[in-house]
Amino acid sequence: MKYSSIPAAQAVVMHCKHSGIRHIVISPGSRNAPLVLGFTNDPFFECYSVVDERSAAFFALGMAQQLKEPVAAICTSGSALLNYYPAVAEAFYSDIPLVLISADRPSYKIDRGDGQTIRQDRVFDRHIAYSAHLRQDVTHATSTIATLAPQMLEQDKDLESIQEVVGQYNYAELQRALQTALQQSSPVHINVPFEEPLYGLSADISVENPVYPTEAPSQRAIGIEKFSRVWRESGRKMILVGVNPPGQIEQELLDRLAEDSTVLIFTETTSNLHHTNSFPSIDSIIAPIEKSADPNQDFEALKPEILLTFGGLIVSKKIKAFLREFKPQFHWHVHPIKAYDTFFSLTHHVKSDPNTFLEQLLQDYDDVPGSYRDSWLPRKSYVRRMRSRYLKQIPFSDFKAFSHLMNSIPAGYMVQLANSSTVRYAQLFDMSPANPVFCNRGTSGIDGSTSTAVGAALHYDNPTLLISGDLSFLYDINGLWNNYLRPDLRIVVVNNGGGGIFRILPGKEESPEFEQYFETPQKQSLGSICATYGLEYCEAIDEESLVRELSDFYNPSRTPKLLDIRTPRTLNDKILLGYFEFLSSNKS
Amino acid sequence: MKYSSIPAAQAVVMHCKHSGIRHIVISPGSRNAPLVLGFTNDPFFECYSVVDERSAAFFALGMAQQLKEPVAAICTSGSALLNYYPAVAEAFYSDIPLVLISADRPSYKIDRGDGQTIRQDRVFDRHIAYSAHLRQDVTHATSTIATLAPQMLEQDKDLESIQEVVGQYNYAELQRALQTALQQSSPVHINVPFEEPLYGLSADISVENPVYPTEAPSQRAIGIEKFSRVWRESGRKMILVGVNPPGQIEQELLDRLAEDSTVLIFTETTSNLHHTNSFPSIDSIIAPIEKSADPNQDFEALKPEILLTFGGLIVSKKIKAFLREFKPQFHWHVHPIKAYDTFFSLTHHVKSDPNTFLEQLLQDYDDVPGSYRDSWLPRKSYVRRMRSRYLKQIPFSDFKAFSHLMNSIPAGYMVQLANSSTVRYAQLFDMSPANPVFCNRGTSGIDGSTSTAVGAALHYDNPTLLISGDLSFLYDINGLWNNYLRPDLRIVVVNNGGGGIFRILPGKEESPEFEQYFETPQKQSLGSICATYGLEYCEAIDEESLVRELSDFYNPSRTPKLLDIRTPRTLNDKILLGYFEFLSSNKS
Repeated sequence: MKYSSIPAAQAVVMHCKHSGIRHIVISPGSRNAPLVLGFTNDPFFECYSVVDERSAAFFALGMAQQLKEPVAAICTSGSALLNYYPAVAEAFYSDIPLVLISADRPSYKIDRGDGQTIRQDRVFDRHIAYSAHLRQDVTHATSTIATLAPQMLEQDKDLESIQEVVGQYNYAELQRALQTALQQSSPVHINVPFEEPLYGLSADISVENPVYPTEAPSQRAIGIEKFSRVWRESGRKMILVGVNPPGQIEQELLDRLAEDSTVLIFTETTSNLHHTNSFPSIDSIIAPIEKSADPNQDFEALKPEILLTFGGLIVSKKIKAFLREFKPQFHWHVHPIKAYDTFFSLTHHVKSDPNTFLEQLLQDYDDVPGSYRDSWLPRKSYVRRMRSRYLKQIPFSDFKAFSHLMNSIPAGYMVQLANSSTVRYAQLFDMSPANPVFCNRGTSGIDGSTSTAVGAALHYDNPTLLISGDLSFLYDINGLWNNYLRPDLRIVVVNNGGGGIFRILPGKEESPEFEQYFETPQKQSLGSICATYGLEYCEAIDEESLVRELSDFYNPSRTPKLLDIRTPRTLNDKILLGYFEFLSSNKS
Repeated sequence: MKYSSIPAAQAVVMHCKHSGIRHIVISPGSRNAPLVLGFTNDPFFECYSVVDERSAAFFALGMAQQLKEPVAAICTSGSALLNYYPAVAEAFYSDIPLVLISADRPSYKIDRGDGQTIRQDRVFDRHIAYSAHLRQDVTHATSTIATLAPQMLEQDKDLESIQEVVGQYNYAELQRALQTALQQSSPVHINVPFEEPLYGLSADISVENPVYPTEAPSQRAIGIEKFSRVWRESGRKMILVGVNPPGQIEQELLDRLAEDSTVLIFTETTSNLHHTNSFPSIDSIIAPIEKSADPNQDFEALKPEILLTFGGLIVSKKIKAFLREFKPQFHWHVHPIKAYDTFFSLTHHVKSDPNTFLEQLLQDYDDVPGSYRDSWLPRKSYVRRMRSRYLKQIPFSDFKAFSHLMNSIPAGYMVQLANSSTVRYAQLFDMSPANPVFCNRGTSGIDGSTSTAVGAALHYDNPTLLISGDLSFLYDINGLWNNYLRPDLRIVVVNNGGGGIFRILPGKEESPEFEQYFETPQKQSLGSICATYGLEYCEAIDEESLVRELSDFYNPSRTPKLLDIRTPRTLNDKILLGYFEFLSSNKS
């Protein structure tokens, strides 16, 4: 096997291997040659080439999301690295272990007018779990030692001892970065300066095999007694789950909670939790209350004593607004590391994984009698009935398209949702337990959903469906610019010709300014985009053609397929808002 | 006229107007509605809508590059802002006044699990001249005063005095940011938290008209005597100019310098300086020395006593390597604010604009007799003769394509060069003084050249030609995703099917890894990309078709045109390296 002849590159590669990082997304460059040579020459690693670093980082994020292990992305020096930032922030708020490795020029060449040189070290500091800045490799470039450790030279230390100290320092940073990614499931940045020549290869390796101390995972005592007591004594317990990967929560625990009539479970589509007694479409429950004659009375009836949350960020704005106003007495958030006080009422951050906590909580617990859940359950079937009725009376629109679309998804397909309208519409319909769902809700950006879906699809056994809006899809068009599109990838663009969500938001006025600067109408042909990136294109312009296209959309094909559903731009908002009106006005 | 009803939005709009900022690039969003409403309702401003923030910021940068005045870009909260970063770093190192204005959620909602919320304030701190974080508008949201200024509340100050203090503080930051952009020609960031409701309009304005203190520009004494004396006494003076906008240096001063036989003027294509006695193709002069029998002797002969530099970053790696090894006795860099010690030999940073300095330097100066320049002038004509001869004997390739292309550009066209191979090839040919040249050399990224060119073209009287490589072009494909493509825009993609520059770099090995991870061969059809974004497509696959296509490429058209020049991927590097060999071997 061949190695880069540069020890720092050898060290990065060895430490990644030692940490079990197998998947490496490479963006082209020259300064990163030592890393590219190192990773691509070792068959342990699976390497991927993605040119646009913004897309590359989201592609890596999609892989890490599925693999539940750190995935590395490697770029050259200069502004390349800055293009990683949107995905870094997403990973930071979504707890995804992304390892960003940037090649750099040696520090004495920063701010010297060299090409492709910026201040790379610690550039993500606002949104990163750990930043390692490897010092220039002294064994490689002893001539520049003076710029590396001038204070050491002043102290008259000999070269060998400096090498030793700097060497140890390097590897300690590297180790800390990778352990942070692994243990905290968070993004980390490793910046590695390299001196030319960059392309040297060596048959031998000159750095030592890393040995990380094996720390026994600390068993924190939850102190379950105080939680159990409160839980037992309360008749009004709400569980609210945001982004949560499938299989994360043991179904048996969920079942036990759902069978308890004092427990109301609100699940979002992104929670991947399903039970006949849980409430999957939060907004459909809350919207009618907002519009009722006496919202306060209903909200008081809905207000929990205990709010138990786990998982990531919550999509529904309505539940946030409700809980911020009608604050629970207790809010426990269960997460091993962090807890956001989303409702300004957090009383306990339970530093545990949810399964452990729930298991202990439900031990020796007998269901308390109560009517909290059952007083709301009829609402769920009511919403379903009303939705069916509403769908029969409305013309073709985003709402109707989503209804058909959500019904069409074959079992086993992973569903990747883009942000903005897409995820909000999806929440209004039922998602089958046979379809795991993912969405970049860390920052909720429209900047990387396609790249994420393409990367995720690579490491999922069954096919993947990406549902996107036209703005999100065009934004991340470079997500299609790579050689890793699986033929069974399916993309649906609900194409309402612009930023449809802005029509829905309250307060806007119909005006040319609104169209141009908020809605930003789009006219790009998705057909020619498919031609560019080698996708099969099909389109639906009304209900009939949608039903027809969906009937063979999921059939096997030699290339990925994109379905362009064109809905009427200026009608969609009225139909959506009309739905909430309908839910409120027609009590049945 | 209507205003946003939110005072902070009014203040931002008024301060921009007061500072003479007229051009506003808007990316869609909801949190930024108060700013969008404010700017689009005031006819003083010219607003542009660009969805992808990465592209929007480069588009704004292109406009600012041409207008030589600050241009603002406005985005919504969350990761949107992070997509500005590549252009921010480019502006930082290229001294371009970009004003990035981000809408934010109020600070008490940061890290609370709200959607589209990150830590926005001061997020660009490594590469920004000034960051203003406006406090939440207290007159607008007095209910959240406790989260704004808790220490003030503790001190028992009454609400009014807090409003006063916070209000003053806000506007001072705003003013400082805009003045920094204006005075230092640098990027600045203004982060503006807004509380809902966001869409309110008002007929009146509630903030006071800003009044900035008028500072007389400080007249720094250059202390010209010490420079004049050294200049007079030296027989070996080299002037080297990097990126420099056209018309920046008075031609009369350049002429006087060029007529001095002790002065050798090395100009890069990006310097926009032209004189029969200057050397526009630095690499063609230095490459033969590198390959000569005794490079040291020739380099000693080329080594200056005084190196005088101005302008931005230098493209030529060869001149950097040469001057770093053969250090001048004096290196003076003339720039009002900053000076990079590019050659590790900077002796003086002359804080002046170059015209003032040169004028004073040349006052009372009589040319000193000497042979420094004249011993090198024959090399220039030699290179031209050899280049013609070489061109006759080589097959169709990047090198030959550039030769035809550079000869074809009509007078008056602005030329925008993409980075990497493009700018390096362009430097090997002559650029007419009738064609101003621009290239993003601050960070030398391939991430925004198209967006920059599209924005720049809008504010240039004549048509614009963008020359790009296939990787750069595909990278910034969203540069075409806006409604501002001028019909007379011309784009040439020298399409060598991948990152051609990586073949040229020394040290690489021919291998599948090389192709996949360095060169990253591309197969996307530029024809269907043109169909997507409404450009006319034409292609050249050999010399004959290139000549034919160029013959009517610049004729007026109803839509922009793209010429796809397809060159042989695996031949280009040999022909380029062969050129330098040829220059060295055939002494004539």
